[in-house]
Amino acid sequence: MLKVAIIGGSGYTGMELLRLLSGHKSVKVTVATSRQYRGKSVGEVFPSLKGYFDGLVFTGPGEFSKKDAELFFSALPHGEGMEFVSQLISAGKRVVDLSADFRLKSIKTYKEWYGEHKAPALLKHAVYGLPELFRDEIKKADFVANPGCYPTGAALGLAPLLKKGGKPLIDPASIIIDAKSGVSGAGRGAALDTSFVEVSEGFKAYKVASHRHAPEIEQTLSIVSGKKISVTFTPHLLPVSRGILSTIYIGLKKGLSTVEILDLYRSFYKDEQFIRVLPEGTFPNILNVRGSNYCDIGLKVDEKNKRLIVISAIDNLMKGASGQAVQNMNIMTGFSEAEGLKAAPLCV
Amino acid sequence: MLKVAIIGGSGYTGMELLRLLSGHKSVKVTVATSRQYRGKSVGEVFPSLKGYFDGLVFTGPGEFSKKDAELFFSALPHGEGMEFVSQLISAGKRVVDLSADFRLKSIKTYKEWYGEHKAPALLKHAVYGLPELFRDEIKKADFVANPGCYPTGAALGLAPLLKKGGKPLIDPASIIIDAKSGVSGAGRGAALDTSFVEVSEGFKAYKVASHRHAPEIEQTLSIVSGKKISVTFTPHLLPVSRGILSTIYIGLKKGLSTVEILDLYRSFYKDEQFIRVLPEGTFPNILNVRGSNYCDIGLKVDEKNKRLIVISAIDNLMKGASGQAVQNMNIMTGFSEAEGLKAAPLCV
Amino acid sequence: MLKVAIIGGSGYTGMELLRLLSGHKSVKVTVATSRQYRGKSVGEVFPSLKGYFDGLVFTGPGEFSKKDAELFFSALPHGEGMEFVSQLISAGKRVVDLSADFRLKSIKTYKEWYGEHKAPALLKHAVYGLPELFRDEIKKADFVANPGCYPTGAALGLAPLLKKGGKPLIDPASIIIDAKSGVSGAGRGAALDTSFVEVSEGFKAYKVASHRHAPEIEQTLSIVSGKKISVTFTPHLLPVSRGILSTIYIGLKKGLSTVEILDLYRSFYKDEQFIRVLPEGTFPNILNVRGSNYCDIGLKVDEKNKRLIVISAIDNLMKGASGQAVQNMNIMTGFSEAEGLKAAPLCV
Amino acid sequence: MLKVAIIGGSGYTGMELLRLLSGHKSVKVTVATSRQYRGKSVGEVFPSLKGYFDGLVFTGPGEFSKKDAELFFSALPHGEGMEFVSQLISAGKRVVDLSADFRLKSIKTYKEWYGEHKAPALLKHAVYGLPELFRDEIKKADFVANPGCYPTGAALGLAPLLKKGGKPLIDPASIIIDAKSGVSGAGRGAALDTSFVEVSEGFKAYKVASHRHAPEIEQTLSIVSGKKISVTFTPHLLPVSRGILSTIYIGLKKGLSTVEILDLYRSFYKDEQFIRVLPEGTFPNILNVRGSNYCDIGLKVDEKNKRLIVISAIDNLMKGASGQAVQNMNIMTGFSEAEGLKAAPLCV
Repeated sequence: MLKVAIIGGSGYTGMELLRLLSGHKSVKVTVATSRQYRGKSVGEVFPSLKGYFDGLVFTGPGEFSKKDAELFFSALPHGEGMEFVSQLISAGKRVVDLSADFRLKSIKTYKEWYGEHKAPALLKHAVYGLPELFRDEIKKADFVANPGCYPTGAALGLAPLLKKGGKPLIDPASIIIDAKSGVSGAGRGAALDTSFVEVSEGFKAYKVASHRHAPEIEQTLSIVSGKKISVTFTPHLLPVSRGILSTIYIGLKKGLSTVEILDLYRSFYKDEQFIRVLPEGTFPNILNVRGSNYCDIGLKVDEKNKRLIVISAIDNLMKGASGQAVQNMNIMTGFSEAEGLKAAPLCV
Repeated sequence: MLKVAIIGGSGYTGMELLRLLSGHKSVKVTVATSRQYRGKSVGEVFPSLKGYFDGLVFTGPGEFSKKDAELFFSALPHGEGMEFVSQLISAGKRVVDLSADFRLKSIKTYKEWYGEHKAPALLKHAVYGLPELFRDEIKKADFVANPGCYPTGAALGLAPLLKKGGKPLIDPASIIIDAKSGVSGAGRGAALDTSFVEVSEGFKAYKVASHRHAPEIEQTLSIVSGKKISVTFTPHLLPVSRGILSTIYIGLKKGLSTVEILDLYRSFYKDEQFIRVLPEGTFPNILNVRGSNYCDIGLKVDEKNKRLIVISAIDNLMKGASGQAVQNMNIMTGFSEAEGLKAAPLCV
Repeated sequence: MLKVAIIGGSGYTGMELLRLLSGHKSVKVTVATSRQYRGKSVGEVFPSLKGYFDGLVFTGPGEFSKKDAELFFSALPHGEGMEFVSQLISAGKRVVDLSADFRLKSIKTYKEWYGEHKAPALLKHAVYGLPELFRDEIKKADFVANPGCYPTGAALGLAPLLKKGGKPLIDPASIIIDAKSGVSGAGRGAALDTSFVEVSEGFKAYKVASHRHAPEIEQTLSIVSGKKISVTFTPHLLPVSRGILSTIYIGLKKGLSTVEILDLYRSFYKDEQFIRVLPEGTFPNILNVRGSNYCDIGLKVDEKNKRLIVISAIDNLMKGASGQAVQNMNIMTGFSEAEGLKAAPLCV
Repeated sequence: MLKVAIIGGSGYTGMELLRLLSGHKSVKVTVATSRQYRGKSVGEVFPSLKGYFDGLVFTGPGEFSKKDAELFFSALPHGEGMEFVSQLISAGKRVVDLSADFRLKSIKTYKEWYGEHKAPALLKHAVYGLPELFRDEIKKADFVANPGCYPTGAALGLAPLLKKGGKPLIDPASIIIDAKSGVSGAGRGAALDTSFVEVSEGFKAYKVASHRHAPEIEQTLSIVSGKKISVTFTPHLLPVSRGILSTIYIGLKKGLSTVEILDLYRSFYKDEQFIRVLPEGTFPNILNVRGSNYCDIGLKVDEKNKRLIVISAIDNLMKGASGQAVQNMNIMTGFSEAEGLKAAPLCV
């Protein structure tokens, strides 16, 4: 059994890691930290998990030995885990970091969106953990920066169109991502903006053309395509707990049909067990991926306007965070890639 | 008191007309028809309205005299009210038709999207009832085709950019409307697709680039701009009862700032009491228009990508249907335009 | 126009008072205070109200003169407004206090549930503002303690059974109130327990047999019946924004039928415009009172078990708080009792 | 691998059986029937399950051979599967029937609530499948009548109080069950009453003191206690997809404390892996059992009124239907009782 630690285990991504690892055959959670819930058992903090982690009690940040675990999930807020992650890497530990701290390769871009970086030397070392695009690097990595939720949905929806080489299918300056996220994406802190009364029966855009996931999306698309790509990105807040639906608009350079592009996607993802390309005429619903690591993709060509509309759906806490983190761990350690991630979605 | 009839009064638009007219000073509802609820009182069918329409009982379709009312709201499903509306017009009655039957000016387009038209001669006669754009025609009209819900949100969000004459601000081929609607937009019939279990915690696109409101939107934008305009339109189903948020993407021809475009909108709508242009940096939430006839508009220029993002919010049953129908009635009859529509939104 | 002040105007009850008074013919809101939003306009804090209170800006607690208003709504948290309310009464102002500070007549009971009382001399002066039971006192009052939300639903559901004199219909020791409230009842402060993710798709009881509204309910029932009454009270948290449904179980002493008890209720409430006793076989839904000042009541005798089940529904922000406060103001000032409260419920 | 058939597989209980069996180690689903979706694959009908049942296509009712499966789940509507179930039993098949057809032991009671019974001879043969109370009988059974959702939550919440022998703890005439269910309990058929718009933001009681689950509850309680027990039962419709919370009121005969009764419950359920008795002062939330087979129980003595309040929470599709059906199958066949049921709840 691989001994695993969850640093910052009392937010939604920590909770979801605990849920997933409770069903993982080859992993034992030996450490879970939480400033807020220090001294409380997992079942006290998350009554849904009562009975799954007997004896596991949340410890304060420094109250465990690095020897207690071999692989560390860091689920701390952005900016708070950099130094500790550095120490773990120096100590030869494997790390999957769920924060945004090591996703961006450019220190300049990081500064612009998140502030000062405290461990810039490590940026190069980190592998961007989107398995469907960078599996080979992840296999060899000891340090994985787990992608953001919006960037996962957007990149998986766009990647097949952007492959390097050959004639370009699309106008790279035309990409618009209209994304809608469930409330758990905002984290587990109490805030008026995410209170039930303010969210239920509501819907709004926020951080219009100014969300810090945009540069992360652009970085991935630029790497995949080999050119600099800029996108218009508008996030919205959905009155649901989980799920991101990304409706992506792309100007087509070639007169391709819906069927031809679907074939391209099916071929691109043919070996991927977590990508489901839907049949022509059907489109994803976040319900159908709820609680699972799937990314469902549907698409249609708007022939009249020479535009392609691609729609992807993920569960933001799963493929958009903790599910992908477990997938990355599985790849890094040589476990079966889907171990702990096989349960069917809880669609209603 | 103006005597008013509601034909097809037991759907959500009929219910909403009853709610609004219960508070209208100068109107008395004398007739309400419903095949399904024939013989039942308003309070039995809609317990929320118990106490408001004493003695008003739903009658079958032919069980009243045209003399019983001076103005008729027709809230029948598309295609079902054409002949009766023709008879009303011939009989000199005023009519506000909430169906799609008389919105499109082109018989060919109507056929393509809705099927055979049974009263084509009346198409020219009908005035398209979007007061902020066509108030002068409505004032003189005896027959108003009340706009669709999506077209109202989209047209109000785009109109200020499309004024005829002068240098074009935008690329007319660039318009993308990503719209999200509450479930009441699908009507009051029982269907698996709109059942609570299938909708709650879900979110999906539907009729992608193939919704019949697209030609209605294009017709209005073409009239306003004086050129043929084609749009990409993607509707989505929100897990809320009411509200449409339209996120609209437009390619800019000129390097205008957010503030300059906000000024343009404020100026365009300066005399409109139901349009609220929001301050820079704030964006609409469907909650803030809930139950009211407002259209809230916010916008931002994405300078990096030379794109404008306009976001409009309406209540689909109000400004998107029954509220606008009452507004049209008020204009047609010379009542104060906001009579019956002044109540503040019920935002939570 | 009566000049009115709202002290503590930025919570949900303050917001709801603003919404209601925006449509009140005889009132002008001259002062609204908020520590948190000091200096902001009403429309900035509540975008739904943009356009309704031109020029009205939230002031800090002490930044206005008592002369600016004739009647004061105090919507401060429990314990925070006692001294100020005392000053207002001394200054000859009319006050409707929406907090719990002056509802309980017994200082001992107050201490037990809320802590030290800072203005005990005023307790006797305050009239308990449940108009359907104490209208005559309210008419003469200058100081009204507005009832709690749960106590309003429970007392209105039980009062007709408890009239003094005659043979007792019910076993006074048998009363059980199983109440379910929407989230706005918890106020507008940010808290994990009322966040969307924790509430949506959830349902739970809280403060089981230990909620501080129980003594308030018991006080009212004891006054109405003339005997000391004790109740079992279990509140639950519903995943809705507004509404309280109280399912009340009462042991019957006499073998009365559902119809006979419905008659008793209809007779008891025959002059009440905000109480709707529903027909036999129909039961209230919180949707049907949403946004309105109604209390809907349905009931059924469980003959096999000699029990009566009474179900009442109110909107907790309306009849359970601000709507009732406006009703009390109307009664105190001699306005029409329903002024500002006539709008039909926004039932979907 | 045990070959298993699902008869009537396209409702919510059928869908949930498919979800659970997709993760069961020792079972292969060989047959799934559906009149409505005949000829469609599981993934087409339930896109969430795309990828889990390759090649499994819904067949019409008579289009398979009884030899294709060894154990049959019958998930047909009440009254529709009686004859077929009889044939299966005669053919030596094992059957778990999720309908109400064989739950009640009294033909008279069945007739009163459901209508004519078409296979009365089988009533005695059927074992009532509540494992925590009747495990020994289930072990030996070839035919299990799977309990109703409300009866499961109620019986598990009450059973420890009702054990035969010894001094009675409670007044058996005092039991009141105030139950609240999610919408999936109403099944997957389209109906106005369960449409999103009518349910969201709503809450109501229905079939007050007249629901057909009451006699099933009374039958179980009477068997467990050895005396005839009658209960008052009020179901309510919650705006959630899944979950039943039952708040149960019981008159106490002895002055027991909360801690003493909690001990009694812990002792009664000490070997039960699906019952979680919560610590003093904490109460169940349906969120914490969502998607799982758990029944969470919390309780409190209302000492002032000599009443016990017990609260139980289950997922109506799991412990209230399909999860319990799989548990029953596991017991009947000698599989590990929790096989296929170990996944932690998906609590948000």
